[in-house]
This record gives sequence, C-alpha cells and structure tokens, in this order.
Amino acid sequence: MDEVVFINCFEVPVGREKQFMELWTEIDSYMLDKPGFKWRRLHRALDEGTHLRYVNVAGWDSAAQFEAAHDQNFVRMQRQPGWLEFPAEPALYVVQEDTVA
Amino acid sequence: MDEVVFINCFEVPVGREKQFMELWTEIDSYMLDKPGFKWRRLHRALDEGTHLRYVNVAGWDSAAQFEAAHDQNFVRMQRQPGWLEFPAEPALYVVQEDTVA
Repeated sequence: MDEVVFINCFEVPVGREKQFMELWTEIDSYMLDKPGFKWRRLHRALDEGTHLRYVNVAGWDSAAQFEAAHDQNFVRMQRQPGWLEFPAEPALYVVQEDTVA
Repeated sequence: MDEVVFINCFEVPVGREKQFMELWTEIDSYMLDKPGFKWRRLHRALDEGTHLRYVNVAGWDSAAQFEAAHDQNFVRMQRQPGWLEFPAEPALYVVQEDTVA
C-alpha cells in the first residue's frame, strides 16, 4: 500500500473558529476533487486551551499526487493574509502501526 | 456518535527512533486492552526534517473511558525519564468534518 497521510495541525485562537473554518473549507473543497484524494477528517479539540486546536488528517493515493494537487490555485488560496492568524504544521506521513480493537 | 479521537504529536530527534518506539510501544500495548479503545494509527513523517515526526491518532468510545484508561500504571510508564527526550502535544478531539472520496 502506497497510501500517504497528510497531517496538518493548526493553532486557532479562541473566538476565531469561524474565520478559520472559512479559509480551511475553501482549500479543502478544492482538494476533495483532486486525483489521488481518498479521505479526510478534520478534528477539533474538546478543550479550548489546546495548543493545536484543529488537526486535519487526510489519506492520498501517493505522495506524487498529493504534491501535484498543490498547484497555483492552491498557492493563491494559501497565501491569503487571513492565514497568517493560524500557524500550521503540515507534513506528509506513512502509517507505521495500524490496529483495530 | 460519541467517539472521541486522541491525537498525540511527538518531536523525535533523528537517530532516536528506536528509543522512541520502545517507550511508545510500552504505553500503546497497555492501552490497546482498555475498555473503550477502538483503533489507533501511528504515523511517521516521510521527511526527517519534520518538526512533529510521529503522530498517533486513536479512536475511543468516550472521553470518560479514555480518562479512566490513564491510571496509575500509565502514569508510572509516562514518568520514565526517557520520555523527556520526546516532547509531545497530546489532546482529545471530536471529528468535525469527515469525507471519503
């Protein structure tokens, strides 16, 4: 299995959830139609005091397709000044251990 | 659905993967048998330069069962000095958006 998993952890100040979701949804909607996209789950911290308040986890068929999806349209959306308010830690991962109870 | 998702992001220096996996596996093995545990996936970054090199994502039936699982045995394992080398950002989340292609 060549699946890669993209994980992006976001800092989102309390009270700025709506602004974050608007920016995130814009890019997310664009990515859902890209070749190689498989699934994604956006997680919101239960506790407002959490440092990384939102974590997006997404499965892609391959790293090459993931990279190709980050085209000029993506860059245009990602460079919007609004994003400066929401520091992120994006990276590509492989699944090392996988267990179901 | 009351499922909660535990996400723990780890900093792991290059060359210290084996030591990290030994400590992580000790706690992980203990948690797999706890009531309420549903699934977990440990992710390893493709790029060694990634800040959060390992990310564990685990589903639990409820926040209460997750909290109950963190008993004295867990605390004993988690307080081992070896863990000081691997800063972590653990938090409990709910799934806000969930899509499959």
